[in-house]
Amino acid sequence: MSNALVGQSGGPTVAINASLAGVIEGVLGTDKIDKIYGSIHGITGILEDRVIELNDTFKDAENLDLLASTPAMYLKSCRYRLKDEDMSQLVSQLQKYDIKYFFYIGGNDSMDTVMKLNAYIKEHNLDIIALGIPKTIDNDLAATDHCPGYGSAAKYVATTVCEVARDCFIYNTKTIVILEIMGRNAGWLTAAAALAKCDNMTAPHYVYLPERAFDIDKFLADMKEGLDKYNHVIVAVSEGIKDKGGNYIAESSLVGKSDSFGHAQLGGVAKVLEGYVKEKLGVKCRGIEINVLQRSASHLASATDIDEARTVGRKAVEFALNGESGKMMIYKRISSEPYEITYEASDINGIANAEKIVPDEYINAEGNNVTDEFIKYAKPLIIGQAKNHEKDGMPVHLSLYKG
Amino acid sequence: MSNALVGQSGGPTVAINASLAGVIEGVLGTDKIDKIYGSIHGITGILEDRVIELNDTFKDAENLDLLASTPAMYLKSCRYRLKDEDMSQLVSQLQKYDIKYFFYIGGNDSMDTVMKLNAYIKEHNLDIIALGIPKTIDNDLAATDHCPGYGSAAKYVATTVCEVARDCFIYNTKTIVILEIMGRNAGWLTAAAALAKCDNMTAPHYVYLPERAFDIDKFLADMKEGLDKYNHVIVAVSEGIKDKGGNYIAESSLVGKSDSFGHAQLGGVAKVLEGYVKEKLGVKCRGIEINVLQRSASHLASATDIDEARTVGRKAVEFALNGESGKMMIYKRISSEPYEITYEASDINGIANAEKIVPDEYINAEGNNVTDEFIKYAKPLIIGQAKNHEKDGMPVHLSLYKG
Repeated sequence: MSNALVGQSGGPTVAINASLAGVIEGVLGTDKIDKIYGSIHGITGILEDRVIELNDTFKDAENLDLLASTPAMYLKSCRYRLKDEDMSQLVSQLQKYDIKYFFYIGGNDSMDTVMKLNAYIKEHNLDIIALGIPKTIDNDLAATDHCPGYGSAAKYVATTVCEVARDCFIYNTKTIVILEIMGRNAGWLTAAAALAKCDNMTAPHYVYLPERAFDIDKFLADMKEGLDKYNHVIVAVSEGIKDKGGNYIAESSLVGKSDSFGHAQLGGVAKVLEGYVKEKLGVKCRGIEINVLQRSASHLASATDIDEARTVGRKAVEFALNGESGKMMIYKRISSEPYEITYEASDINGIANAEKIVPDEYINAEGNNVTDEFIKYAKPLIIGQAKNHEKDGMPVHLSLYKG
Repeated sequence: MSNALVGQSGGPTVAINASLAGVIEGVLGTDKIDKIYGSIHGITGILEDRVIELNDTFKDAENLDLLASTPAMYLKSCRYRLKDEDMSQLVSQLQKYDIKYFFYIGGNDSMDTVMKLNAYIKEHNLDIIALGIPKTIDNDLAATDHCPGYGSAAKYVATTVCEVARDCFIYNTKTIVILEIMGRNAGWLTAAAALAKCDNMTAPHYVYLPERAFDIDKFLADMKEGLDKYNHVIVAVSEGIKDKGGNYIAESSLVGKSDSFGHAQLGGVAKVLEGYVKEKLGVKCRGIEINVLQRSASHLASATDIDEARTVGRKAVEFALNGESGKMMIYKRISSEPYEITYEASDINGIANAEKIVPDEYINAEGNNVTDEFIKYAKPLIIGQAKNHEKDGMPVHLSLYKG
């Protein structure tokens, strides 16, 4: 009987360990695979022989539940692109552990690893199955309706917008708050800020995605309009917005000024825009970089996201046992109301290194907000509070090392 | 029969509306007070006649529960110090609404309002009771064991440290993460970062409070030691740390450097220290300003804190009916294990404008961490997850206006 190996790669999400839990329970639940190995630090772990057996730890179902609610990567991560000269070493390592099933959980860079391994397998007629399992808060993987990890990050961002807005609304002073959100090229997560809006919450008032060229004068005009209408203006902005010349706004400055805002600002686009607002409009302004919390706040994970992420891990094992290889698992949406998806697999060649940006129909004509179509798309993904484990008021996580 | 008036003032917390809920239910539960009025934007609301009756809205017990889980101030806030010339206007406004009981929820600046009103009442022999109810994430009010709002902020900070540490630990690269925490003069909230440490969590490795002079060379030596020991070093630092000359580190720069770190940095102490670490130690470093989330993240409020904050509001009404005036409600700790407090009232003159800093026994000899005594003090305050109301995956808050 043969074995399986799983690795995690790229940037963290709060759902990537749920997918790992799914893969492990999928393997433990079949008699067709003997051992499930984990590669420490992604693909570099198998290349450098940092491989551990996972069967024992996860015989205990409670550990699987703990794993599913632990943020970031239990097996640690890497950012490493496979080179041609790695391939024979990689395969001989897989053979050393009698690996027939290789599962790699990651974003579009990680899918490049699956694609290369699959090509090598085909070329050399090896009896190895390679499947990718998506994860990214950026939600920018092709072929899948959405990505594991996105729903939870979206929930965190929208909740944060709502709570920061309540914080801002208390003073009788015109104020602008600018929240900087991750997603350098794709604005999916920034767009999710708009989920905060509800019957008694007008924020966010403006949403700027990297899919549209950012014009500072139009932005300042928007802010003036917003101050007139709302007094307190809440803005969501992608870290990656660029002007029409393709220059990052985060790297810009108020040219020709010799005051404290006159030199290039450190600390991202929110602080740059804060500088512009204070200088040009003279109102109170606070730039907030939400930072890594949006990808690691497992205490606020979406139950929908975590459930799907764990299911797609289990499904990957099923698909692998059916002989599917060279593919990435995807979500296919059947309907939004009621929300329903199915799990499928899609050719890795159309996914690796590709990037799915926010389509035109989700962005308003002015380029300063999202459309109702986007809300309809994103709303089901944040439903429910994922189960947390708490001890002494603190989250309980599963950790490979004391760290 | 006479009426009561309540107002909220100063910076937001996630517990201040729970205290408001407590005052309202205290008044609704007695037949000795007729109406409960709310003053919009703190004391300025009564001075400028922005006063609303609250009885109707909160006859509905569900609204009281919603209020208790809504962050920031339902009645809005102000930062206004009463002037002598305001006093007759204030009292005539109180008399206009037949107010016998005045409750003011706030920090040490807000207690100044209670003190001044009380002095005026005494001097003019008026039949008005003025009581303060504490709130502040800074935990710096005198006389009380701890302050409503602190436990929830502490829980948020410690949870954030834990989740950010998991995020940091995944790469095989020496890294320093510096979390900047609120509390300009008192380090209570920064100290709470240490609650993250548990069996499988070594972070935070260093904690710097404003109660100790900060030495940049000692800090860099600590970081070197930390990198050797842990590879990944998580640091909690107060926004208000100063050097031994009394200068804020947030305003310092690498003197004599002409590179990008050579000019005064915007964006707080975390970014300044990030600059020093990158420049002097040459390792990967990320400065994170936790920002207003630490005072507004009601989704992660401590059940202990919210319960106590609501109870102290109810108790304030009891104490007022017993004729106590010119005092602030306080928590008195009976024991830490098991945790038990009682509710008392303390003379406002010893509290208004005073500031309680972290005592020596809670800070280690090196000045780069807290002691076990502090952990014993703070641990009970973060226990339990306060009840949240959720709809469509988003928190439900109670709002006075569509805002």
